[in-house]
Amino acid sequence: MPAHEFPLPVALLIVFGSAKLVGEIFVKLRQPALVGEIVAGAIIGPSVLGWIAPNDTLKALSDLGVMFLLFDVGLQVKARELLKVGGTATLVATVGVIVPFFAGWAILRAWGAPQTEAVFVGASLVATSVGITASALSARGLLHEVASQIILAAAVIDDVLGLIVLAAVSSFATGHVNVLEIALTAGLATAFTVILAKWGTTAVNHVLPHFHSKAEAEEAQFHISLVLLFALSALAMYTGVAAIVGAFLAGLALSENADARVRDLTRGVNELLVPFFLVGIGLHLDLSLFRTRSTLILALLILAAAIVTKLIGCGLGAAGMGWTNVVKIGMGMVPRGEVGMVVAQMGLSMAVISTEVYGVVVFMAVATTLVTPLLLKVAFRAPVLENVEV
Amino acid sequence: MPAHEFPLPVALLIVFGSAKLVGEIFVKLRQPALVGEIVAGAIIGPSVLGWIAPNDTLKALSDLGVMFLLFDVGLQVKARELLKVGGTATLVATVGVIVPFFAGWAILRAWGAPQTEAVFVGASLVATSVGITASALSARGLLHEVASQIILAAAVIDDVLGLIVLAAVSSFATGHVNVLEIALTAGLATAFTVILAKWGTTAVNHVLPHFHSKAEAEEAQFHISLVLLFALSALAMYTGVAAIVGAFLAGLALSENADARVRDLTRGVNELLVPFFLVGIGLHLDLSLFRTRSTLILALLILAAAIVTKLIGCGLGAAGMGWTNVVKIGMGMVPRGEVGMVVAQMGLSMAVISTEVYGVVVFMAVATTLVTPLLLKVAFRAPVLENVEV
Repeated sequence: MPAHEFPLPVALLIVFGSAKLVGEIFVKLRQPALVGEIVAGAIIGPSVLGWIAPNDTLKALSDLGVMFLLFDVGLQVKARELLKVGGTATLVATVGVIVPFFAGWAILRAWGAPQTEAVFVGASLVATSVGITASALSARGLLHEVASQIILAAAVIDDVLGLIVLAAVSSFATGHVNVLEIALTAGLATAFTVILAKWGTTAVNHVLPHFHSKAEAEEAQFHISLVLLFALSALAMYTGVAAIVGAFLAGLALSENADARVRDLTRGVNELLVPFFLVGIGLHLDLSLFRTRSTLILALLILAAAIVTKLIGCGLGAAGMGWTNVVKIGMGMVPRGEVGMVVAQMGLSMAVISTEVYGVVVFMAVATTLVTPLLLKVAFRAPVLENVEV
Repeated sequence: MPAHEFPLPVALLIVFGSAKLVGEIFVKLRQPALVGEIVAGAIIGPSVLGWIAPNDTLKALSDLGVMFLLFDVGLQVKARELLKVGGTATLVATVGVIVPFFAGWAILRAWGAPQTEAVFVGASLVATSVGITASALSARGLLHEVASQIILAAAVIDDVLGLIVLAAVSSFATGHVNVLEIALTAGLATAFTVILAKWGTTAVNHVLPHFHSKAEAEEAQFHISLVLLFALSALAMYTGVAAIVGAFLAGLALSENADARVRDLTRGVNELLVPFFLVGIGLHLDLSLFRTRSTLILALLILAAAIVTKLIGCGLGAAGMGWTNVVKIGMGMVPRGEVGMVVAQMGLSMAVISTEVYGVVVFMAVATTLVTPLLLKVAFRAPVLENVEV
């Protein structure tokens, strides 16, 4: 832990500067820049130098960063294309939720953990962090491949499923399972996502030109886009899904309407804020937890399970699409990022997870995130794009 | 005070949405959008609706917003042009510091306040908040007028002078005046500002092309600009001047080097973050303080003094430049914004200022800020730009 908090400009300099420095080194080594930025977080964080620890301000910048990241990805894809792959994506998401859950649960039971702790670790393995995959695919210009579209759609569905699992697991931990409440949560989240994906673009295409023609302030189109972004992110939270799902759906709804200026201005925000999201992931890594051998072994087992079960589970869901696509999709669904951490944190605050197991889950989340862009680079090896940064 | 803190996306929606809504209404009424955004802050803040209160996250976004605002303004002006008006600007800044200080001190003494409190209120009237003026001039495309250049240069010098006054006043309040330390602070701050203004552009023009040719990551030029922005802001804080002075000097240093892409991406960040700075000013207004008549009278007296003394003081400094320029410059130096609040806050934490007088200073800071864009609109009335938002 750092001895003191830095003033804002110093913290910005350390976080942003180190992200771009290590990112540039990774690019020179023909490795994905975003992996470099996560590594930068691990270096300046408690694990190595201890200059920066997670705090409220960095958390806010990171949350804002991942919202804009998903918004930007949404802007780049068409809702129609995503809906076309909806069936496959649902299958990919569902099987990709079931397999990791039971694998995580089984490993913890075999390790001797109590029932509730095992269930929580299983739940933490469920939800894919769409941010990392989306960022890697977007940076390589691959968002329009069918496999990418399935990954994006599946990751969104996955988040809804993860929410249902989390609701079920939490009520299981408190001892009173309220089926009606879980069903209500599930219904609300599903309705929100489906309605926006299906009719969001049409609604925006009808309503927005009206606003644009009336607004007189400069850059009004960008302001209206941001208001929609914040509104849907907030609404998403109230329906229970992650704010970033709302951000993605906002981008999706605007994808046919937003002009080049809106995209450029969004890009500016992303260039500033996304490093805070990536560094934030690295900051959470705390290797000091692995001083006992048994924890280290558990961590490696859980990490292996996290990778293999998504590969197999999501791959199975996409079985009909040919070997190449199966591998791409399976790998794209591997990163757990912040979603797994949130589940583990909830378990920690409910005192059903030990700090040791919490550390293991965080390690799994960071490690799957680090490894995914590298896996994707191999899976999507496109000769033309070989030298482009991921 | 709000009963609870909103989740991030909801807070963003309320702050950003209300800023843009009230801003748009002001534009429709042919009033400056930025005044609307400050008013939005007063409406959603503790004064009226009480939805949002200042907190750490909003403070960070606001600080980042004003840094980017000054950075953007710096990008738009040339250091050479600012240095040309350096003599006049120094005179404007100096007389514009002396007159308000003694006026504030005299009013408080006449009101019956103790010596230290009067000195602190005098000090809080000293420094111009360059953010508001710069934003108003920039939005109207007036940054290249001679009067604007003098205002910008004087506001920067003013900040250095304000720092010296603050150092002197603080040591006066603690009872042991350390002349050597004050001189050291003054020297360091002056050296930092002068060196960067004089040689910053040349240094950047020499060094940056070297970096640009080597960097391979996408948007590397923007990343390098941001690193310079954060580095100079941090350095400014350590030499004692405000971070925003460093941000301005960073923009100034880059003003010949930055291409259209860097400016567009910076604009995107500004469009998102500057409203948080403006709303943040409005949030600080708390009208409930003025229930006693004597406080209300004091507040109006201080407000009048704040406006008149800068008009006269800065006008005197620019006396040789013709009546029109004298009025423009005097009005441009009126807003105190966050700088006055910081002095008052320090007085409050040192227990030499009462909460009542603190409220008066905050009121003065917000009110001068609200009134300046309106004054500037009149002073800079340029027929061609008549309908452009300020």
